[in-house]
Amino acid sequence: MKPVRPILDMNAYDGKTSFAQTKEGDDLLSRRTRNFGAASVLFYRDPIEMVSGSGCWMTAADGTSYLDFYNNVPSVGHCHPRVVAAMAEQAAKLNINSRYLHQTTEEYLDRLKATFPNYLENIVLTCSGSEANDLALRIAQRATGARGFIVTESAYHGNTAAVTDISPSALKRGQLPDHVIAIPAPSKLTYGDDIAAGFADEVNKAALVLQDRGYGVAALIADSIFSSDGVFSNSRGFLRLAVAIVHRAGGLFIADEVQPGFGRTGDAFWGFARHDVEPDIVSMGKPMGNGFPMAGIAVRPELLSAFCDDVGYFNTFAASPVASATGLAVLNVIRDENLQANAALCGKSLREGLLHLADIDGRISDVRGAGLFIGVDLSPDGDPAKPSGQLVSDIINAMRENRVLIGAAGKYGQTLKIRPPLCLKSSEVDFFIEALAKSLRACR
Amino acid sequence: MKPVRPILDMNAYDGKTSFAQTKEGDDLLSRRTRNFGAASVLFYRDPIEMVSGSGCWMTAADGTSYLDFYNNVPSVGHCHPRVVAAMAEQAAKLNINSRYLHQTTEEYLDRLKATFPNYLENIVLTCSGSEANDLALRIAQRATGARGFIVTESAYHGNTAAVTDISPSALKRGQLPDHVIAIPAPSKLTYGDDIAAGFADEVNKAALVLQDRGYGVAALIADSIFSSDGVFSNSRGFLRLAVAIVHRAGGLFIADEVQPGFGRTGDAFWGFARHDVEPDIVSMGKPMGNGFPMAGIAVRPELLSAFCDDVGYFNTFAASPVASATGLAVLNVIRDENLQANAALCGKSLREGLLHLADIDGRISDVRGAGLFIGVDLSPDGDPAKPSGQLVSDIINAMRENRVLIGAAGKYGQTLKIRPPLCLKSSEVDFFIEALAKSLRACR
Repeated sequence: MKPVRPILDMNAYDGKTSFAQTKEGDDLLSRRTRNFGAASVLFYRDPIEMVSGSGCWMTAADGTSYLDFYNNVPSVGHCHPRVVAAMAEQAAKLNINSRYLHQTTEEYLDRLKATFPNYLENIVLTCSGSEANDLALRIAQRATGARGFIVTESAYHGNTAAVTDISPSALKRGQLPDHVIAIPAPSKLTYGDDIAAGFADEVNKAALVLQDRGYGVAALIADSIFSSDGVFSNSRGFLRLAVAIVHRAGGLFIADEVQPGFGRTGDAFWGFARHDVEPDIVSMGKPMGNGFPMAGIAVRPELLSAFCDDVGYFNTFAASPVASATGLAVLNVIRDENLQANAALCGKSLREGLLHLADIDGRISDVRGAGLFIGVDLSPDGDPAKPSGQLVSDIINAMRENRVLIGAAGKYGQTLKIRPPLCLKSSEVDFFIEALAKSLRACR
Repeated sequence: MKPVRPILDMNAYDGKTSFAQTKEGDDLLSRRTRNFGAASVLFYRDPIEMVSGSGCWMTAADGTSYLDFYNNVPSVGHCHPRVVAAMAEQAAKLNINSRYLHQTTEEYLDRLKATFPNYLENIVLTCSGSEANDLALRIAQRATGARGFIVTESAYHGNTAAVTDISPSALKRGQLPDHVIAIPAPSKLTYGDDIAAGFADEVNKAALVLQDRGYGVAALIADSIFSSDGVFSNSRGFLRLAVAIVHRAGGLFIADEVQPGFGRTGDAFWGFARHDVEPDIVSMGKPMGNGFPMAGIAVRPELLSAFCDDVGYFNTFAASPVASATGLAVLNVIRDENLQANAALCGKSLREGLLHLADIDGRISDVRGAGLFIGVDLSPDGDPAKPSGQLVSDIINAMRENRVLIGAAGKYGQTLKIRPPLCLKSSEVDFFIEALAKSLRACR
C-alpha cells in the first residue's frame, strides 16, 4: 500500500495538477489557483466557500451549514464572542511588540505558566507552532550537543526548513535527512498489547543508529496524541518508558502539544500529563488564540539560557498585547465554560456512539482516542489489520453531503480523524453519529 | 571596535545578566524576566510600560506620551480605526484556515499581487517574515540545486534555524555556517563613490568562494534599504549590477521587503523597485497587517511549482479571512490616505531638518535614506569615517527623556535608525527635530 501524506489530506483539491483547467476563470477557485499556484491546498474536489462560523458550525455561501468535526484551531467555538471582544478591544488600544512592558502580557504569561509543571519556568512566545518547534529543535541541539532527532513515521510538526526535516508526512518524495529517524507510531497493530515496551524498543534502536551515524540524540519529539499518525492515545502512560530511554541516551523529550493541548484530551490540560512524563520542552500552538496566530514553548530555564548564550531570539509579533489578551480570553473561556470536562464528557458519549455503530457495522474496525480527539479505523472487509484509505475517503465525501466536515489521518489515510470544538453539545454528538450512520449506509 | 548586534539593540535591558536581581519582585519587570528568562528582550535599562497608542504616539502607564520613531509594524498608525474595525468585524464572522474558499482572501490576494511586477504570479502567505524568508531560502535552494547564500554583514532576516544561519546580526558568538558568506554593506565609507561596482565586486567574490566550497550560489538575499546594516538607500539603482552578477552565477535574488516594503521609502511601493531590479522572490512582513501577525512571499510560479514537487506547504493561520481582511484594510488605508506620497514628503522634510541640524552640529556626520526610512551617523569628533555607537546610545536615551522613541543600526550601532509611522504629520517632524536638537545639546 502506498502511504499518503496527511498534511495534504487525501481528499484535497490539487492545485498543482488542476492549475491549467482554472487558468482563465474569474470564479474564486480559478483566482485561488492562479494566486497560490502550486501551493494551493483546498479541501474536497469541489471546494467549499465559507462565509460564517459560530459554535461548532460553519455556513457556506450557498446557505448550507456544516458541523465542524475537523478544524481544531477554533477550539472554544468559531468566533467565540469573548475571544473576539478581547482581541478587538485590545487592538483598538495598543498592539505593539514585547520590548515594552504590558500588564496583560505578564498576566497571560503567569496564567499560561500555571498550567505547566513548576520546573518549566520559562515561556517563549511565537506566531506559529512551526516557529515554536523550530526553536525547540535548536534549544535541544544546543543543550545536548547532539544533532539527531527521533520522530514517528507519519508525524507532522510544522513547515520551516528545520521542522520539515522532522516531518515525514510533509514529504511528497525523497527521504528524511540522515539526522532524523522515523519509527512506527504506537499502534497496537504494530506493537501488540505492550505498546509501551515495543515503542520504547524502537526509540532505543533509533538512538543507537543516530549514535552510530555520529549525530547523537538531541531529542525525541512526539505529539502525545499522535494525530497525523492516526490518533494513538492509549493506554495512558505508554510514553513513560520511551522518555526514560531517550533521557538515558542523553536526549531531551519535546512534547509537541500543538494538537492535544489546551484541554482537548479531557483527561488533562496537556496531553503529556496523561502519560505522566516530564518533557524538557513543550510546544503549543493551534487552539492557543482560537484563530489569532500565536504559539510558543515552555522550557526548562537552563536550556533556554544556554541557547541564548549563542544567539539572540526575538519574535516581532509574538507576545503583543493583542496576542496576550486573546490568549488570556481563550484560557478564561476554557475555565469558565468547563471545556476540558466537556471534552471528557462529550468525548465519552461520542466514543459510545461510535462503538454502538461498530456493533451494527463491522467495517468500523477500531475506535480510540481521549476526550475530543478520536480516531476511527475503517476496514472494508472487517479485518482490523486491513483498514482502508479509500473507504475513509468515500466516507469523508459522504459526510460532506450529510453536512459534517471531517478529515483523515494515518500512514494510509485509513483513520477518520475526529476533533470538533470543545464546546460540543450532546445534540451535536447525535447529529454526527446519525450522519456517520447514513454515510456508512451510502458507502456500501 | 567590537561590533554590536542590532537585533538586541544596544540600549536593551539584558534579561540574562539581570535575571538574579529581579527573581523575587512582583513588579512587571520581575515577572517578565521570570517568565521569559534569558530570552527577555526589552528596550532601555529602565523599561517602559506602555498602555495605549494612536497615530504616531504611544502612551506609557505614567501618562507620558512618546512620539514613536522606532516601530515599523504599526505603519499606518497605531491602532488605526479602519484596520481594527476590519479585523474585529471579520473575526466575529469567520476565522478559519485557507483550505476553504473565501471572497476576502481572494480579493486581498488579487490586490496584493497587483502591487508586484506581472511575472511574480504566485503569493504564499505566512505568519511572520521569518517564515516567509525560511520558505524563500528553500525555494531558492530547490530551484538552483545550490546551497549557498550571500548576505550583508549586519543583516537580520529572521529567527528560524535556517534564517538565523543567514542573519549575522543575530549571532552573539561563533561564526556564520560555511554555506553563508557575509559581505560589507553598501556604504560609501566602505566602497567610496561607486557603491554599485564595489558591492557587485564583493558579491562576485562571495559567489566564487561559495562555488569553491562546493555549495554554489542559491541566492543573494538583501533588504533593499539595508536596515540593520545602517540604512543604505542611495544612489537608486546600485543593486542592479549585484543582481546581474548573482544571476550570472546561477543564483536567485531574494528581495527581503519586510523593512522597506508597503510604501515606506516614498519612491516606490516596494524597495526593490527603487533599484529597478527583478527579484525572483520577494518576502514581506512587518507592516503588512499593521500588527496582525501576517507575512508572505511573491514568487515566480515555476520556482514555487518545483518546490511543491518535493514537499507540501501549508500554513494553518496564514491567509485566514481575518488576516485577509486586515491586510486589505492596510492596503486601502495606504491608498486612501496617500501614505506613500506622505512618506516621500515628510521624509524629505525630515532629512532637510536633519541636514539643518548637521550644519549646526558637526557630530551629525551623515544623513541618508529614502522616504520615512532614514539613517543618521553620529561622530563625536566630526570625522565621518569614525561614527560612534556610544554617542548614538546616549542620544537614544536622551531622546527618551525628550519623549521620542528611536533605535540604532549598523555594525557598531553607530547609526540612528529613523522609521516613524507613514501617517507622520509635519508638526511631528518638527517635534522630532526639536527633540533631537535638545538631545544633542544634552550629550555634549
